[in-house]
Amino acid sequence: MTDPAQGAASSTLDPQIAALLKRDTAGLVTAVIQEESTGEVLMVGWMDDLALHRTLTTGRSTFFSRSRGEYWVKGETSGNRQRVREVRLDCDGDTVLVKVRQEGAACHTGDRSCFDARQLSAVVVDQPEQAGS
Amino acid sequence: MTDPAQGAASSTLDPQIAALLKRDTAGLVTAVIQEESTGEVLMVGWMDDLALHRTLTTGRSTFFSRSRGEYWVKGETSGNRQRVREVRLDCDGDTVLVKVRQEGAACHTGDRSCFDARQLSAVVVDQPEQAGS
Repeated sequence: MTDPAQGAASSTLDPQIAALLKRDTAGLVTAVIQEESTGEVLMVGWMDDLALHRTLTTGRSTFFSRSRGEYWVKGETSGNRQRVREVRLDCDGDTVLVKVRQEGAACHTGDRSCFDARQLSAVVVDQPEQAGS
Repeated sequence: MTDPAQGAASSTLDPQIAALLKRDTAGLVTAVIQEESTGEVLMVGWMDDLALHRTLTTGRSTFFSRSRGEYWVKGETSGNRQRVREVRLDCDGDTVLVKVRQEGAACHTGDRSCFDARQLSAVVVDQPEQAGS
């Protein structure tokens, strides 16, 4: 606990927030990360109570890695940090939307967003169904 | 199979797309729904292969409900439909980003977005750490 943003009195998630969360079987909620300035969706990660607490109290996005089973602070090794600007919880409590200012690339591939590289072919219906309505 | 957008030859997900997916233990990927015109994140749902297939081929967002264990087409009962404009897969294949044109409210509460109602108090660090760098 050397992080100055985490006082001894705030080492766990606010119980009022914790009570709103609907965690999955692994104790996690989905975290959608959005660039505040452009609205671009950058990445999706996972947070347990402690990761959310750290995200809310340190100003930096913190996740729980499902594959590695450990916490990670975005940009801690790459330098491509996320400064938290706003955090919102969805209606059923299983997803947070974190608006950030992204420094550098959000994706580990070097892309700006994790969604840059792969577009799937989709049928687009241009006309709203207005006949008779 | 009365949906005219689903021919007999395309009743399952394209195997090349299916091979890219990293599903969770329930066989699902996360689906982030974003309003194309504003960039607003509207909601997050879940898709299995068939829900993604339907989303890609019918022009309408289709989800798999984890709580009800059934498929649902957004707006089928409320009329607040989503017309698919673009679908992207993230770098590790466990999340799709679906850009849509939302008709009416996206949230079942009547809010435009499922993230409208609850903002969590978060520390915002305004100054990038520039000293010495």
